Amino acid sequence: MEKQALLYEGKAKKIYQTDEQETLWVEYKDSATAFNGEKKATITGKGKLNNEITSLLFDKLKQAGIDNHFIEKISDTEQLIKAVTIIPIEVVVRNIAAGSLAKRLGLEEGVPLKETIVEWYYKRDDLGDPFINDDHIRILELATQQQLSDMKEIGLKVNDVLTKHFESLELRLVDFKLEFGVTADGELLLSDEISPDTCRLWDIHTNEKFDKDVFRRDLGDLTAAYEEILKRLGGSSCTK
Amino acid sequence: MEKQALLYEGKAKKIYQTDEQETLWVEYKDSATAFNGEKKATITGKGKLNNEITSLLFDKLKQAGIDNHFIEKISDTEQLIKAVTIIPIEVVVRNIAAGSLAKRLGLEEGVPLKETIVEWYYKRDDLGDPFINDDHIRILELATQQQLSDMKEIGLKVNDVLTKHFESLELRLVDFKLEFGVTADGELLLSDEISPDTCRLWDIHTNEKFDKDVFRRDLGDLTAAYEEILKRLGGSSCTK
Ligand SMILES: Nc1ncnc2c1ncn2[C@@H]1O[C@H](COP(=O)(O)OP(=O)(O)O)[C@@H](O)[C@H]1O
Ligand SMILES: Nc1ncnc2c1ncn2[C@@H]1O[C@H](COP(=O)(O)OP(=O)(O)O)[C@@H](O)[C@H]1O
Ligand SMILES: [Mg+2]
Ligand SMILES: [Mg+2]
Repeated sequence: MEKQALLYEGKAKKIYQTDEQETLWVEYKDSATAFNGEKKATITGKGKLNNEITSLLFDKLKQAGIDNHFIEKISDTEQLIKAVTIIPIEVVVRNIAAGSLAKRLGLEEGVPLKETIVEWYYKRDDLGDPFINDDHIRILELATQQQLSDMKEIGLKVNDVLTKHFESLELRLVDFKLEFGVTADGELLLSDEISPDTCRLWDIHTNEKFDKDVFRRDLGDLTAAYEEILKRLGGSSCTK
Repeated sequence: MEKQALLYEGKAKKIYQTDEQETLWVEYKDSATAFNGEKKATITGKGKLNNEITSLLFDKLKQAGIDNHFIEKISDTEQLIKAVTIIPIEVVVRNIAAGSLAKRLGLEEGVPLKETIVEWYYKRDDLGDPFINDDHIRILELATQQQLSDMKEIGLKVNDVLTKHFESLELRLVDFKLEFGVTADGELLLSDEISPDTCRLWDIHTNEKFDKDVFRRDLGDLTAAYEEILKRLGGSSCTK
């Protein structure tokens, strides 16, 4: 496999073409961003951690029968993925009130939700990734009704698998964000990344935060937090 | 019918009990508020205008087969209504991009929407009436799934009737907000008010605004705008 032209550079990853049309080459960057890019930092080692954590989690999901874009990890900071056209909707799944949901509904952070909830956000940095509903998606033609119900169903399945997995590692999966894409032959495919950048993960006993909130809220050492996640996941490159 | 104790004073209306349990007495106030009560004014004559406009529109809806809480107008600023327990959801129906929708989705104000859209907002002044989805409503137990689908269906019917009615008066119904309640015997009933406080109404030729945006955006004389709506609706107390 040959790495070719840079296709897209985002806030967390660089995506390159390869000599195979259906395959892309991802490089995880050492940058942290929050509040729609307003807060930024370079955090050495973060790319490596998120590359390995995402690889482990996408593998776990594949084993549980949830197909996704992950092909293989090819270096500390790189992986190969299936090329998709990303649907510009961030699918957020929540088990416990935190972040914008706690604020929106006036709930105390940490309150378990009676049922898992799913939210759509329009992936548009220039608009601040606004919260949207099915009707907005319909008029903007962001996704079909079928894709929406598939994304919700897959999102809830991912939640089941990962909640149990993290529980066995004494971690609480509070909420997470997924992205989906469509392959050249029209298949809806779970894509992007699943990492402490995109999940809220709290220690099951102490509620200590091991996710991007450490950066957002200046709670301590981000690398140490992500290393703790990788360690519990049994990651190989772990330094601890 | 006898007016009894004040039950509730809101931003736009006072609600009194009567000697009949199922009937309430409403007084429309001369106050205008916007931005969740941050902007306020007393506007003499507004209560009278909204009382008459709401009465005419609820009558129109009843004639079109859409049942609602309106019983009768009993004075310039007062009407009798059926008592309900209000469902704390504001149902917003939109035909044209304006206000918060234009901002949220990055659409130019005035752009017609491909299809009519319906949105839910949590009626909670202390939270700024946040935009919510079906899942939020489920976990907060604000309404049942059946009530949600009924509110959407009735909202779209109201839109059909009022869009045609206003069109015949050379007015464009851009968007509007409805409230629903549940009667003592469990019936879902369209309630509250339908007035230029709760609708965006633009002249079909000039797009001149005849609604609360005149107040929100300091566009001119609010009373004159509301009087124009009442005049076109054929209101009896119209001074022009
Ligand atoms: N399988 C894939 N095929 C194509 N693009 C992808 C795939 N997975 C993720 N992407 C996209 O790669 C881009 C880079 O990722 P990232 O740095 O996280 O971007 P962002 O700044 O938008 O969060 C994003 O637009 C993401 O949606
Ligand atoms: N039929 C009804 N029965 C009981 N309450 C009602 C009915 N119709 C409207 N209401 C409620 O009357 C209150 C007063 O109205 P308003 O002044 O518009 O209040 P707000 O400040 O909440 O907008 C509101 O809470 C409204 O929901
Ligand atoms: Mg991203
Ligand atoms: Mg009101």
